[in-house]
Amino acid sequence: MKLLRFGDAGAEKPGMLDAEGGLRDLSGVVGDISGDVLSDEGLAKLRALNPADLPLVEGNPRLGPCVGQIGKFCCIGLNYSDHAAETGAAIPEHPILFMKASSAVVGPNDDVMIPRGSTHTDWEVELGVVIGKAAKYVSKEDALDYVAGYCVINDVSERHYQTQLTGQWTKGKSCDTFGPTGPWLVTRDEVSDPQNLAMHLDVNGKRMQTGHTNTMIFTVAEIIEHLSHLFTLHPGDVISTGTPPGVGMGIKPEPVYLKNGDVMELSIEGLGTQRQNVGQDA
Amino acid sequence: MKLLRFGDAGAEKPGMLDAEGGLRDLSGVVGDISGDVLSDEGLAKLRALNPADLPLVEGNPRLGPCVGQIGKFCCIGLNYSDHAAETGAAIPEHPILFMKASSAVVGPNDDVMIPRGSTHTDWEVELGVVIGKAAKYVSKEDALDYVAGYCVINDVSERHYQTQLTGQWTKGKSCDTFGPTGPWLVTRDEVSDPQNLAMHLDVNGKRMQTGHTNTMIFTVAEIIEHLSHLFTLHPGDVISTGTPPGVGMGIKPEPVYLKNGDVMELSIEGLGTQRQNVGQDA
Repeated sequence: MKLLRFGDAGAEKPGMLDAEGGLRDLSGVVGDISGDVLSDEGLAKLRALNPADLPLVEGNPRLGPCVGQIGKFCCIGLNYSDHAAETGAAIPEHPILFMKASSAVVGPNDDVMIPRGSTHTDWEVELGVVIGKAAKYVSKEDALDYVAGYCVINDVSERHYQTQLTGQWTKGKSCDTFGPTGPWLVTRDEVSDPQNLAMHLDVNGKRMQTGHTNTMIFTVAEIIEHLSHLFTLHPGDVISTGTPPGVGMGIKPEPVYLKNGDVMELSIEGLGTQRQNVGQDA
Repeated sequence: MKLLRFGDAGAEKPGMLDAEGGLRDLSGVVGDISGDVLSDEGLAKLRALNPADLPLVEGNPRLGPCVGQIGKFCCIGLNYSDHAAETGAAIPEHPILFMKASSAVVGPNDDVMIPRGSTHTDWEVELGVVIGKAAKYVSKEDALDYVAGYCVINDVSERHYQTQLTGQWTKGKSCDTFGPTGPWLVTRDEVSDPQNLAMHLDVNGKRMQTGHTNTMIFTVAEIIEHLSHLFTLHPGDVISTGTPPGVGMGIKPEPVYLKNGDVMELSIEGLGTQRQNVGQDA
């Protein structure tokens, strides 16, 4: 299934795609794409529906983030071997974890706003993992059982804030609009291997990132094992699993950053496409 | 006012203290101590009530975290000049920010559980700031207008996870039960100067931390100004503002860490007392 949320920001309704790609309204069935709806039982109930019986949504409504009520937004840094090689960084011994403020989450096609005065805003296409049931002290062998599904995430990053404001990386990752999430939550039964997905990101029509989840240093299962030994992963928590080569910060001879009027387009195999216009806070 | 939440974890009701320290049930008036209830208008409505008209809660129910539906839990590191001197760390140029997972938040007297296999769990008494209305690009002169109130926080920290797991500090700060918050949210009209509060923390009856918010490097107002230039602070967001000297990690000649059966007791002038038994995950 491809589950989604549509409508005005903060008032999104749940929906799903039908076989023809039509948008069907799930608001008569569930309150949101969140919490218990993401469990195996919750997803089985949705799977038992005939999409043709659900109201067809006309037009092209705004899409919201494909998960509602995100508890924590965990991000893994430096998780692609080819990206680590590109930057000259050492291969980390454990997954590098930082948090993105959940207030940064927006829809997949919402504007990304460069903060006031900022000049180092960068892009990062990433595979997002949505947790479906509580995970604590789980092994990597069982870890994928705790996944509801997968989605595209743009882990937008302000590099000066991330590295120069005497903080932790979270400063550069948590600005408003820095977490486009969606368009869809693709349930895990439709993703046979999360380590076999091609991905890319364009800026103004030019290919900047080309990657593949088979070069992840820590697999999705290993990341879930590690995090679940630190804390409970709850239904609706999101893990963004790191970015492949080609971010603006790494461009030679000079880094390239986003500017007002730029357009980002990014996609992951089977998980859909995001498109954001870039603006700048006055 | 002293606002609080009482009852079973995950099903807390809102309440307030009356003039005699009795617990009054606010659930007939508001749904939770969260969101709009924390605005100036929301607090004015509660202030207009006569607590004696509200149901008195008998017995000693469990207290939950004094704020519900916390969006983001921002923590400031190394923010006391005497603590920085003690550890030999340089005075930071800007507030050091990391996030604590909101899933770590518990009531003020709930058990703190050392994670499985962990041996470096430490204590940190901190002044908590609860945001009452959305704050974006605010100046320090106006910053305290955005505060609903203040509370005690124990920023429990696993030092090995924080510094040795090739992550960011958030790894050692986000374990389940690592965020006791309360007992009360004391509204800002009752805290004439947040930079004039004494604080301390005992372990097993022995005084370990003695501090005062007048040695903060960045004041509450300066922290809000800085964070609000990174992202929007929303009602119900919490900022934990750093810890004074005396954490276990800094004890000479050998650090001292928490163990199963220990008891922590901590308080801040006018904001009440927390007491936690320490357990360990099997």
